[in-house]
Amino acid sequence: MASTPQRKGAQPGMQVNGVPYRTIFPAEDGRGVLVIDQTKLPHRFEVVRLDTVADAVRAIATMIVRGAPLIGATAAYGMALAARENAGDAFLQEAHRALIAARPTAVNLRWAADRLRALMLALPRAEREGAAYREAAAVCEDDVAACASIGRHGAALIEKARTTGRPVNILTHCNAGWLAAVDWGTALAPIYCAHDAGVDLHVWVDETRPRNQGASLTAWELASHGVKHTLIADNAGGHLMQRGEIDLCIVGSDRIAANGDVCNKIGTYLKALAAQDNTVPFYVAFPHSTIDWTMASGADIPIEERDHAEVLEIAGLDAKGGVSSVRIAPPQTQAANPAFDVTPSRLVTALITERGVCAASREGLETLYPEAAARK
Amino acid sequence: MASTPQRKGAQPGMQVNGVPYRTIFPAEDGRGVLVIDQTKLPHRFEVVRLDTVADAVRAIATMIVRGAPLIGATAAYGMALAARENAGDAFLQEAHRALIAARPTAVNLRWAADRLRALMLALPRAEREGAAYREAAAVCEDDVAACASIGRHGAALIEKARTTGRPVNILTHCNAGWLAAVDWGTALAPIYCAHDAGVDLHVWVDETRPRNQGASLTAWELASHGVKHTLIADNAGGHLMQRGEIDLCIVGSDRIAANGDVCNKIGTYLKALAAQDNTVPFYVAFPHSTIDWTMASGADIPIEERDHAEVLEIAGLDAKGGVSSVRIAPPQTQAANPAFDVTPSRLVTALITERGVCAASREGLETLYPEAAARK
Repeated sequence: MASTPQRKGAQPGMQVNGVPYRTIFPAEDGRGVLVIDQTKLPHRFEVVRLDTVADAVRAIATMIVRGAPLIGATAAYGMALAARENAGDAFLQEAHRALIAARPTAVNLRWAADRLRALMLALPRAEREGAAYREAAAVCEDDVAACASIGRHGAALIEKARTTGRPVNILTHCNAGWLAAVDWGTALAPIYCAHDAGVDLHVWVDETRPRNQGASLTAWELASHGVKHTLIADNAGGHLMQRGEIDLCIVGSDRIAANGDVCNKIGTYLKALAAQDNTVPFYVAFPHSTIDWTMASGADIPIEERDHAEVLEIAGLDAKGGVSSVRIAPPQTQAANPAFDVTPSRLVTALITERGVCAASREGLETLYPEAAARK
Repeated sequence: MASTPQRKGAQPGMQVNGVPYRTIFPAEDGRGVLVIDQTKLPHRFEVVRLDTVADAVRAIATMIVRGAPLIGATAAYGMALAARENAGDAFLQEAHRALIAARPTAVNLRWAADRLRALMLALPRAEREGAAYREAAAVCEDDVAACASIGRHGAALIEKARTTGRPVNILTHCNAGWLAAVDWGTALAPIYCAHDAGVDLHVWVDETRPRNQGASLTAWELASHGVKHTLIADNAGGHLMQRGEIDLCIVGSDRIAANGDVCNKIGTYLKALAAQDNTVPFYVAFPHSTIDWTMASGADIPIEERDHAEVLEIAGLDAKGGVSSVRIAPPQTQAANPAFDVTPSRLVTALITERGVCAASREGLETLYPEAAARK
């Protein structure tokens, strides 16, 4: 575990055992990049070092880092690591290709890699490395600021849902917490912001099979921050809504189409259907880097098919305190593992971004991002 | 493993490694009752012996036996075991109470226990034990015949969904196969019947967290019978429907309200919502013993809350070939575990019973069961 303070900015952020942490930050030598290994949580807290663009690609592909904003930040630093290795055009182009191929769905990856590539290719070779590290740091700072702002806008919606006599009950799916971003998170930022402001709330945490990011990451985050929460099977959310036990849903997103369709972790669509059927508000929180203005609707978003072993085997803490996997299906059984689904915008109550809250539609998004509308 | 043939009837049924098996059957001594231990599947096939009503209660409560029809059959034999212990009124009343308290949701349990109690209390004490064993056997034979008939009626619906060039793709949730009944199953009976008639089909098997009955029981059944199938996380079904990869859904039920509302394994409601949103037919298959004519709608059906450890820990085959559990959540995290939900009849395309196919409504059910309508 790195022992130095991880935060230089003025804003206080999330902590691990009292130490401020971001999910990604430069090593003390200013060259390597340190990330929290999210495949080890909640059982082990480990920070690993990335020294090459290949390390960054591997960290994204194996989900050492995951979550759309954090994948973007890692791609930015991955381009900087590439420039340190070889700042020539060909190497940077290949680094860009490898990074955006690491995972297909989250558009933040392409957004950040594009941003760093464009910056570097416009500069003399000797200036590229330094500029790339500065730009990667700026991508991270922008993300932290965006998530903090999402937190404030979303917290107002949570405040609105307050009634006397019981906590505000919020359902979330997968992990769109600070572990999914650089700090604060997207879906969980409003929860932290409202909690810190004294709002009594309780979070229903979807387990989020097959990789259990709810159980392993969201529950860990909420427990660490002292937020009341209860883990549930992904199957339970609809029933809880029928029983009036959920006041609102907030999820993150891996890609927002220009019409407001929401691509997010597999299973999000089912919860949005249940929310609509029970008149429960369903919010989606994300920074601008998650919007894909080139995608007219969600239908064309590429859906990653991941390793089937993620469905057939489950990892956890064993009786001896080690982490091991067990196989849940008979030997002949095969699996399918689509990692994301698309929730049509008609099921989404509103979108929460760093610029505010808007309708889940092209018109709504263009209200918040008129410069994008102007680019059409 | 019992080595004797398990089937006396004329109907051929399901087999395990070439040996015909039912899920419950009398031991050779005609006194004990043998059941397949479903907590050990798919990793071990073991038959355990019940000798007392307490054994039967424990087998139901710990889910050695599960599935609404099989719980009913076990309750019937449990009353027979009670009569063998002590055929006095008080003991039988206490046996009845303990059995129906073993699990709250599946109404077949109460139906069978009521049937055996009424039979015995109307007889002289000396005749009760023999009559109870005969009646328990009759409950089982009735269930086998009902499930075979459900299979024929449901297979016709699968036939109707046939198109050229690809298999009929069917989604099922939890296990409503022969392991959930005495033989054949409810939701899976139509699949076996159509498969055996040469219909090319493929089953999407919901894992069914938290107890993974899809992975452990349905996948095992389908693999054993040679039916093509693919295991998916519970989260994936909506996405597959959006992509046109599911032609119909068939699930079982633990209790059907008089208005056609369907109580079934937690998560069923979410799949019914997705089916409606994508115009995919959603069928529910069950025998008459699952209908609760006293329940006007599904809102009042008691929903079992099971041990939270079922959510926090997952059992499977470990690297050494043993069965062990791993914990997926951090130590501070608690869970909730509602075991069933209610799917409103408006989301159900049709009901499949041993008497045919009907609309999911009071009128539909009364068409098939006019004697129940007459009793009102």
